[in-house]
Amino acid sequence: MAIIVHKYGGTSMGSVERITNVAKRVAKWARAGYKIVVVPSAMSGETNRLLGLANQINSNPDPRDLDMIASTGEQVSVGLLTLAIKAQGIDAIGYSGWQVPIKTDDAYTKARIESIDSERILDDLNNGKVVVITGFQGVDDKQNITTLGRGGSDTSAVAVAAAVNADECLIYTDVDGVYTTDPRVVDSAKRLDSITFEEMLEMASLGSKVLQIRSVEFAGKYKVKTRVLSSLTDPLMPLEEEMNSGTLITFEEKNNMEKAVISGIAFQRDEAKITLKSVNDTPGIAARILKPIAEHKIDVDMIIQNQSFDNKTDFTFTVPRHDLTKALAVIEEHVKPLVGVVEVTSNSKVSKVSVVGVGMRSHVGLASLMFETLAEENINIQLISTSEIKISVLIDEKYMEVAVRSLHKAFELDKN
Amino acid sequence: MAIIVHKYGGTSMGSVERITNVAKRVAKWARAGYKIVVVPSAMSGETNRLLGLANQINSNPDPRDLDMIASTGEQVSVGLLTLAIKAQGIDAIGYSGWQVPIKTDDAYTKARIESIDSERILDDLNNGKVVVITGFQGVDDKQNITTLGRGGSDTSAVAVAAAVNADECLIYTDVDGVYTTDPRVVDSAKRLDSITFEEMLEMASLGSKVLQIRSVEFAGKYKVKTRVLSSLTDPLMPLEEEMNSGTLITFEEKNNMEKAVISGIAFQRDEAKITLKSVNDTPGIAARILKPIAEHKIDVDMIIQNQSFDNKTDFTFTVPRHDLTKALAVIEEHVKPLVGVVEVTSNSKVSKVSVVGVGMRSHVGLASLMFETLAEENINIQLISTSEIKISVLIDEKYMEVAVRSLHKAFELDKN
Repeated sequence: MAIIVHKYGGTSMGSVERITNVAKRVAKWARAGYKIVVVPSAMSGETNRLLGLANQINSNPDPRDLDMIASTGEQVSVGLLTLAIKAQGIDAIGYSGWQVPIKTDDAYTKARIESIDSERILDDLNNGKVVVITGFQGVDDKQNITTLGRGGSDTSAVAVAAAVNADECLIYTDVDGVYTTDPRVVDSAKRLDSITFEEMLEMASLGSKVLQIRSVEFAGKYKVKTRVLSSLTDPLMPLEEEMNSGTLITFEEKNNMEKAVISGIAFQRDEAKITLKSVNDTPGIAARILKPIAEHKIDVDMIIQNQSFDNKTDFTFTVPRHDLTKALAVIEEHVKPLVGVVEVTSNSKVSKVSVVGVGMRSHVGLASLMFETLAEENINIQLISTSEIKISVLIDEKYMEVAVRSLHKAFELDKN
Repeated sequence: MAIIVHKYGGTSMGSVERITNVAKRVAKWARAGYKIVVVPSAMSGETNRLLGLANQINSNPDPRDLDMIASTGEQVSVGLLTLAIKAQGIDAIGYSGWQVPIKTDDAYTKARIESIDSERILDDLNNGKVVVITGFQGVDDKQNITTLGRGGSDTSAVAVAAAVNADECLIYTDVDGVYTTDPRVVDSAKRLDSITFEEMLEMASLGSKVLQIRSVEFAGKYKVKTRVLSSLTDPLMPLEEEMNSGTLITFEEKNNMEKAVISGIAFQRDEAKITLKSVNDTPGIAARILKPIAEHKIDVDMIIQNQSFDNKTDFTFTVPRHDLTKALAVIEEHVKPLVGVVEVTSNSKVSKVSVVGVGMRSHVGLASLMFETLAEENINIQLISTSEIKISVLIDEKYMEVAVRSLHKAFELDKN
């Protein structure tokens, strides 16, 4: 019988009642004959509580200690969920990451999974047990506990699914799938039955926040059929119905003429833009500007370098808004000495809006439609950046909702 | 330099401030050049909180799951204390029991330590690090997490001290040592500078509750110099003073003429007495009565079988008061069929008072002094039980305090 991996987030594990509901759902799948592996997150709020204590005690905590502390949240969840599943009359066994083991590198608080030993899991599954495994964590080759960073339980689930060659990895969450855009911004946003892995990558990294981006990369790399679906439905709903709910992340582009050429409108509200004006356009200038920024752990997103005149160019990039002050300080201290004195301007009231879809590969005119739509709303485009399957623009944040709504309509995403 | 093991209880680890105080104390010892291993308990209340959740979810929980859940409390403490010690400028490293490893049998929730690998600990100590290790837990030979049961952190500390051949094991607690009796009952109770291991065993098992009895057995078996002292003193108090505070558990009987022949008065308030009247006095009768009781996990304490007349005897034993109802039910169902119909009487309002001291071995007349003292107070003795170093009597619980006070005075324990 097929192996299915379930992943439940912190909200789904947030109370005794909710844990019991998760157990009922798992028991339903197990009774139907599926071999089930469950990866639960820590109870909601627990990881923050633990890391809060740590930061009160030491304002510059050693990440190894943080991992030892934070990893306990998932261990408690595994123990409680194992007990809850047994209370449903289904045999189960729980493991911490180190017991499987889930081997990682030693990059504490942001470790990467290197390998998963599936032997113990498969033995237990073949003996009729549901296997419950801690998300978010593993163990390095010196037996130190590591964590994968926030949202890492999604990655754990997909990695476990790859290791046991699962038929599907079900990510249960508090939304019922991936939408054409955020339903809080556009009423007529529609849930997608499926989305390609590449589109999902763009949607996730652009702020859809449904799934941790590393888990999507993992799903892509190991071709794990992954489905995002709601944990808020009746746990005893018919299995057939549940199996077809949510949004499936696929690896084939459907050759469906009816399908909209784009899948969704993604956006990132809290962006900031930095421009270095009239920089000398010499080879290596981009690296000299961006390397110090990266070294200070600031994520740079869009990067635009205009055509130069008189060997001078304007160099613009975006950073998360909360990192703007830090980024400007880094430029002052580390970049200016490298590139000569330059004028620096910044704007912390900008947002990014993107149109995403694999259909872009074969359809022309999508960029024009996007720009025309924004022009009709009198929205000025500050930056443009494109990839094979997306077009992103940076605009004044006050027009963000208008832009998302008008693009959602223009691309007919509100139609089934 | 000497290796010293510190153990801190849940109250000492109860808040960010208290953990910081523990770290200051540890740092003081480390700065003085000692190699320090610290064994902290879970933050007070945490183990109960976790087990409470487990019992809400499954009223008949699998002990393996309970151990996985409960063990996280100490792991959090280790992480937080390690951070706190580093915040004091002292290098430190934290381990869970399985990382050391502390190997145990697989008796979940009441496992016994089988071996401790000291290599990693000694390496770290030689590299100038304070080593922080979870109390209360270990790992069995199948890599399952086990716990040692309530109070197990004392045992962990003594066992670690034995494994690293520590010069002393300091058990920091919320009392400042072992007293001649409970100061809440007798104002003039005195703290003992030292007590022999055997006396401590009797005191601990008789309800002094300062130290978990298994830890005392461990200390005795491996000759670990163990000291009970206060964690409520100024963490920066002079080291010399701290080293001589509390009560040292010794392995030699001091040949000190000045020393009182007995060390203390122990008592156990909540006892219950059961008598089976006119039982046929045949070989094996005691086993037939007590085996079913033991199989139902009821601790039997005092056991008295009187001289028989006409081949009939009265068989009396005591159990913890909260187990009386259960014990009577076991007798009704399992004992009566084995020993024939008997009359059963019970009394749930009895307490045990004991005089403890290695001096008893060489001094006569101590029993007489005890009985005379109780007689002067008109206290009727219901049962008497003796060992090499203690005499215990069972009396009506309403006289318990009077008995303890008068014995404390009669044996001159209020004098230095």
